[in-house]
Amino acid sequence: MPGYKHLFIPGPTNIPEEVRMAMNVAMQDMRAPDFPNLTKPIFEKVQKVFRNTTGRVFLYPSSGTGAWEAAIQNTLSPGDKVLMSRFGQFSNLWVDMAQRLGLDVDVIDCAWGEGVPVEAYAEKLKADKTHDYKAVFATHNETATGVTSDIAGVRRALDDANHPALLMVDGVSSVGSIPFDQDALGVDCCVSGSQKGFMLPAGLGILSVSKWALEAHKTSEYGRCFFSFEDMIKTNDAGYFPYTPATQLLRGLDVACDMILDEGLEAVWARHHRLAEGVRRAVDAWGLKLCAKEPKWHSDTVSAIVVPEDKDARDVISTAYTKYNTSLGTGLDRVMGKVFRIGHLGWLNEGMVCTALSSAEMAMIDCGFDITAGSGVGVAIRHFTETPAPALKLAAE
Amino acid sequence: MPGYKHLFIPGPTNIPEEVRMAMNVAMQDMRAPDFPNLTKPIFEKVQKVFRNTTGRVFLYPSSGTGAWEAAIQNTLSPGDKVLMSRFGQFSNLWVDMAQRLGLDVDVIDCAWGEGVPVEAYAEKLKADKTHDYKAVFATHNETATGVTSDIAGVRRALDDANHPALLMVDGVSSVGSIPFDQDALGVDCCVSGSQKGFMLPAGLGILSVSKWALEAHKTSEYGRCFFSFEDMIKTNDAGYFPYTPATQLLRGLDVACDMILDEGLEAVWARHHRLAEGVRRAVDAWGLKLCAKEPKWHSDTVSAIVVPEDKDARDVISTAYTKYNTSLGTGLDRVMGKVFRIGHLGWLNEGMVCTALSSAEMAMIDCGFDITAGSGVGVAIRHFTETPAPALKLAAE
Amino acid sequence: MPGYKHLFIPGPTNIPEEVRMAMNVAMQDMRAPDFPNLTKPIFEKVQKVFRNTTGRVFLYPSSGTGAWEAAIQNTLSPGDKVLMSRFGQFSNLWVDMAQRLGLDVDVIDCAWGEGVPVEAYAEKLKADKTHDYKAVFATHNETATGVTSDIAGVRRALDDANHPALLMVDGVSSVGSIPFDQDALGVDCCVSGSQKGFMLPAGLGILSVSKWALEAHKTSEYGRCFFSFEDMIKTNDAGYFPYTPATQLLRGLDVACDMILDEGLEAVWARHHRLAEGVRRAVDAWGLKLCAKEPKWHSDTVSAIVVPEDKDARDVISTAYTKYNTSLGTGLDRVMGKVFRIGHLGWLNEGMVCTALSSAEMAMIDCGFDITAGSGVGVAIRHFTETPAPALKLAAE
Amino acid sequence: MPGYKHLFIPGPTNIPEEVRMAMNVAMQDMRAPDFPNLTKPIFEKVQKVFRNTTGRVFLYPSSGTGAWEAAIQNTLSPGDKVLMSRFGQFSNLWVDMAQRLGLDVDVIDCAWGEGVPVEAYAEKLKADKTHDYKAVFATHNETATGVTSDIAGVRRALDDANHPALLMVDGVSSVGSIPFDQDALGVDCCVSGSQKGFMLPAGLGILSVSKWALEAHKTSEYGRCFFSFEDMIKTNDAGYFPYTPATQLLRGLDVACDMILDEGLEAVWARHHRLAEGVRRAVDAWGLKLCAKEPKWHSDTVSAIVVPEDKDARDVISTAYTKYNTSLGTGLDRVMGKVFRIGHLGWLNEGMVCTALSSAEMAMIDCGFDITAGSGVGVAIRHFTETPAPALKLAAE
Repeated sequence: MPGYKHLFIPGPTNIPEEVRMAMNVAMQDMRAPDFPNLTKPIFEKVQKVFRNTTGRVFLYPSSGTGAWEAAIQNTLSPGDKVLMSRFGQFSNLWVDMAQRLGLDVDVIDCAWGEGVPVEAYAEKLKADKTHDYKAVFATHNETATGVTSDIAGVRRALDDANHPALLMVDGVSSVGSIPFDQDALGVDCCVSGSQKGFMLPAGLGILSVSKWALEAHKTSEYGRCFFSFEDMIKTNDAGYFPYTPATQLLRGLDVACDMILDEGLEAVWARHHRLAEGVRRAVDAWGLKLCAKEPKWHSDTVSAIVVPEDKDARDVISTAYTKYNTSLGTGLDRVMGKVFRIGHLGWLNEGMVCTALSSAEMAMIDCGFDITAGSGVGVAIRHFTETPAPALKLAAE
Repeated sequence: MPGYKHLFIPGPTNIPEEVRMAMNVAMQDMRAPDFPNLTKPIFEKVQKVFRNTTGRVFLYPSSGTGAWEAAIQNTLSPGDKVLMSRFGQFSNLWVDMAQRLGLDVDVIDCAWGEGVPVEAYAEKLKADKTHDYKAVFATHNETATGVTSDIAGVRRALDDANHPALLMVDGVSSVGSIPFDQDALGVDCCVSGSQKGFMLPAGLGILSVSKWALEAHKTSEYGRCFFSFEDMIKTNDAGYFPYTPATQLLRGLDVACDMILDEGLEAVWARHHRLAEGVRRAVDAWGLKLCAKEPKWHSDTVSAIVVPEDKDARDVISTAYTKYNTSLGTGLDRVMGKVFRIGHLGWLNEGMVCTALSSAEMAMIDCGFDITAGSGVGVAIRHFTETPAPALKLAAE
Repeated sequence: MPGYKHLFIPGPTNIPEEVRMAMNVAMQDMRAPDFPNLTKPIFEKVQKVFRNTTGRVFLYPSSGTGAWEAAIQNTLSPGDKVLMSRFGQFSNLWVDMAQRLGLDVDVIDCAWGEGVPVEAYAEKLKADKTHDYKAVFATHNETATGVTSDIAGVRRALDDANHPALLMVDGVSSVGSIPFDQDALGVDCCVSGSQKGFMLPAGLGILSVSKWALEAHKTSEYGRCFFSFEDMIKTNDAGYFPYTPATQLLRGLDVACDMILDEGLEAVWARHHRLAEGVRRAVDAWGLKLCAKEPKWHSDTVSAIVVPEDKDARDVISTAYTKYNTSLGTGLDRVMGKVFRIGHLGWLNEGMVCTALSSAEMAMIDCGFDITAGSGVGVAIRHFTETPAPALKLAAE
Repeated sequence: MPGYKHLFIPGPTNIPEEVRMAMNVAMQDMRAPDFPNLTKPIFEKVQKVFRNTTGRVFLYPSSGTGAWEAAIQNTLSPGDKVLMSRFGQFSNLWVDMAQRLGLDVDVIDCAWGEGVPVEAYAEKLKADKTHDYKAVFATHNETATGVTSDIAGVRRALDDANHPALLMVDGVSSVGSIPFDQDALGVDCCVSGSQKGFMLPAGLGILSVSKWALEAHKTSEYGRCFFSFEDMIKTNDAGYFPYTPATQLLRGLDVACDMILDEGLEAVWARHHRLAEGVRRAVDAWGLKLCAKEPKWHSDTVSAIVVPEDKDARDVISTAYTKYNTSLGTGLDRVMGKVFRIGHLGWLNEGMVCTALSSAEMAMIDCGFDITAGSGVGVAIRHFTETPAPALKLAAE
């Protein structure tokens, strides 16, 4: 089909031209004397994106799922009691992993469309006088439902209870897009991946850990090798890796971090919020609802849009894909058929959001939705003209 | 600025991913024994895109302007009388070239927004009993004003007058996008370039000539070398070139022609017409007019949109570029400031047209136009949902 | 430094142009309905490269090390007794991993430069009447020393003892380069990675398993999630993955497998042997020895070359890198400074081997080695002219 | 065929990775307000490569042949008397062009293998008291025979005769590789192309002119349009072009000039000389002769090697291509079959020269030449170890 394939799933996101160019490379020697000239600055830049000044980051050739596993294997021990909550496919899978890896998981189930139950966490932590919980897990952005949770609230719950449990955060679809400050939030392990806010192909699991997590590592009793911190630390400090790294992705990561830091994290977050708001206004104009139950949970990186009861969201997605060359996100697990998702994160601008909304409108109209053509994209356009956009700095200026 | 740079000028157009991949190559030996395996099929495919079964095509490392010059230098002689018309920047420049190259040009000036004056041509040709006109020139698609001319009408004028003059057509922004059949139209020289319907970077001048043009070449008296047919013919027939060809572009051209021919010329033309119609409806919904004065002249590859008298179109273009990362075409020469252009040709689909219209709306609203947000893109969306789109054939089917 | 960086480490290897082009892509939707059209044939092709017709392959976004871990985690249980041997850095690391993952490892230590001690294995297996050994591990090609082991011998030892232990093979630097037939050898888990014979960037761990390994999986008691077979099987069968796959690498893998299978596995193996033989003759002409102690252990993918006692191999490597833009492999662990390595696997031809030998000669001469300029590359040239090379099939034929 | 295609023709040359990456781009708007930020520095950098501080450069989407034509059309007039010499295919073709464009050419024919006959030029210029010669043409580097001419000598001949004729130089295969200083040599038009020392794909004709050439332009009477200086000057000064430029190549040119200027012109020239000397020593060791008749004419960018009378050089070239994946240059016109050529210019290092020599040796041995394997590459290796190479500056330093 002619024309760009429009990609509006919540990851992989659209790769910047600069990153694509940087990855179009011949292979290089990962034991060369000047290899650390490439790698050492990358570690520093990635830490800056997490706002992690006290700990360190690990770059695994894997995925966000791999980084989840790395976080658990390296800081906890089989049988440890942990506090988790689930309210969507990804928080659900993380619980599943924790259980399969032998943790004693205290799970709180919430409705899909809600976020981390901060109050319930607070109560449980206060009640845990013996500090049985070794870690508290929170999914910062539930990609399946478009819900952003209150990590600061979880931190407060820990602090108020004076509880030493580690704070483990899934930031796969938030870091680099939604406000996140690892130092300020006291997050011990923050998991991310290359294919979301980092604007790269999938293939890197990124784990940013605090000094407390590194401390906890010393007594962690999991058998581990591929994901082990110790092998990484030993070699990373010299600019190398314990096994062949995904050099091509490192070259891309270097450029992607430069782009994020040059734009400025606050500007990146503001851009995501403004673009997301355009999507939300469109959803409202269409007369539809988000899966996220309250505005406080609205995600700036992905919107899960609930279709009317007599419709199947999969028809919208399939129509957008086959007729309009546009990938929208599907509903996962229990919201399959009930929602379609628009990913609006990464290397994105107003015109791209308008493409997403236009394709969604066309697909919904084709599927018999009672939608006025242009209604959604129209309010987004109005929103974009009414709110300040960062003006282009011409290269010469 | 983050996100794709949206390119909606009438060339260079958006390069297909397949073409971009094909051009990402190391250099190769243009005298290798297997080089003709690459080049010979290309000549055949390009001829098919022109629907030229009797003559041949020339591929110059140059531009459309170079191919204009090649057409004149190789088939006419200094002092030859020719019939031309001008009604926009590009028809204007072709007249200028003809004069500078020493032709005796009989020019008919038309209003910008009109096309080739077929009736006037018919009269002049009928009156030319002595066959003084050696060639008749027609700009198929005037890129500056978004006007498509009636080449069949010009052919009829020649035939009705039983006139042997060569028919020279500028198809730079029409071939591969707007219906054109060189055999059926009896076009002797059709000029094109790589960066429009051929969906490649600029760098190739493409000239498709009839057997009559090749005949005329034998008596043409221009001094020439770089653009000479004879040097090309001698080497092209064996699959080589008289000087180093732009191999990278040839690799891209091979793939681009495959894409055009696989989609099918009629399907390509239909797609352009449907997408252009979406743009025209948007213009109408905005309460604006096209530069093209009558529907018969509406171009399916570019729309030149006239702004209200109290507005400067350059502000729209500049706003779209600096705020919304979108390139629109500027008004050239005498329509500078009065029109902005949307290029809608090449590797294009509905979502891309919606991006163009959305960015234009945002820019116009920012410039104080009295436009309802979503009005233009809305009618385009409606149009696209109401007219059949070729459904995606999944790769496996 | 101008000119190609010459890469002759034993992985990452040189990426074919076709693969590089295939990976120069925008991101795609890994849940799209036509995604299996890409992935399903890949699984089949990869199985063909392993000659595995009864089991299946797993493609992890990881590395060879990750695939090692996947093999253990999915087919064995903590505390299982296994038989291993070490005679180089990589066989050593695999033992280390097995121990860290809690296996009860019976290790046989051999001299570096020897291969798997087939006779010792045979004895131990025969003695193990109670079938305590759950698995036997063999490093097919020890990348650190340039030693290829006799996997058929290990298979025979198992068969002769009528022993049911699984046969685990590290084929990271052999599969796709050195004769390997998983079916015929009765290998249960064969581990590989993308950046060696598969001619891709690092980033994929490739694991090919027999039906017996899949059977063993059912009773394996390791906690696992990221590397778990069951999640992969559930999704792979439909053409999808349990988490975001490294799509870019999959696109490359598809093309790389086509290249290998089009050339033909036997032809690929023959090419490697012929090119390796050129290197070995050069080493002989230089008056140097290989680390591999006997010809039966000569590796066709990498040669570890022992420098005279008064020399430090690191000087050769550093000189080659800084003066001649050439990466040679370093000596690892206990052979550091004593050997340098020439990787000769993957997308390789005679000219490239001559580059490697020439750069090595220049570096050795600069380091004061008593080498006649041209002596090594000369015998390689003679060898290449005296042995048949597969003639180029011109594209048209 | 597996492995790199080794490219050792005298253009197109091997493209630097950096250039290839820079050209892997989406299309851009050549009328955008920030387009001059790209183009203006390019004009300056290209002038620096020519060492032209007083005039200007023109960048045509064409080839070296196009730039030849541009030089003539813009500074001379039909019927002008000019002094030329021919001693190879390219000097020959330039004479042919001059004649076809209507110049009154006084040609001096020399043996192929000699260079510009400086003494004969001097005599003729001295004798031309009436200054009938409007221009003197000199091919700096005759690519067909590997002969570099004495441009300073031609300049002296003009100066000694106090002759005002323009000095036209073909620097296609010399500029950016062989010492050339346009200011110091008083060259009025120096022609080059993108695919040689500029290390780009073919597609740009590059013409560097002095202020005297610009002066001469004012009275030049050729009809011209595509190549006209005036249209270029009008737009170039603002950073634009009179017709769509080959933006992709401009992006590459920008990077290529940076690479040349960062290495330093003197260093680039020295590198070429050192590498060429390695080739010449190999030729000597093989017992063969260069086509260039005297050392003063030895070209540092290409060596044309004469084969024994009982051999056909085309067999060597064909064997190298089909068996060893190596492109050598063929003998053109009257030296066809008598010479093969090794191009050694552009992005080149020692290892690459050794590849070229090794492949040539293999091909010659296969063709029955009486050559000792390793003899040529051996002396080159010795030469490279005995002469200083610029040490790699590690990126961090």
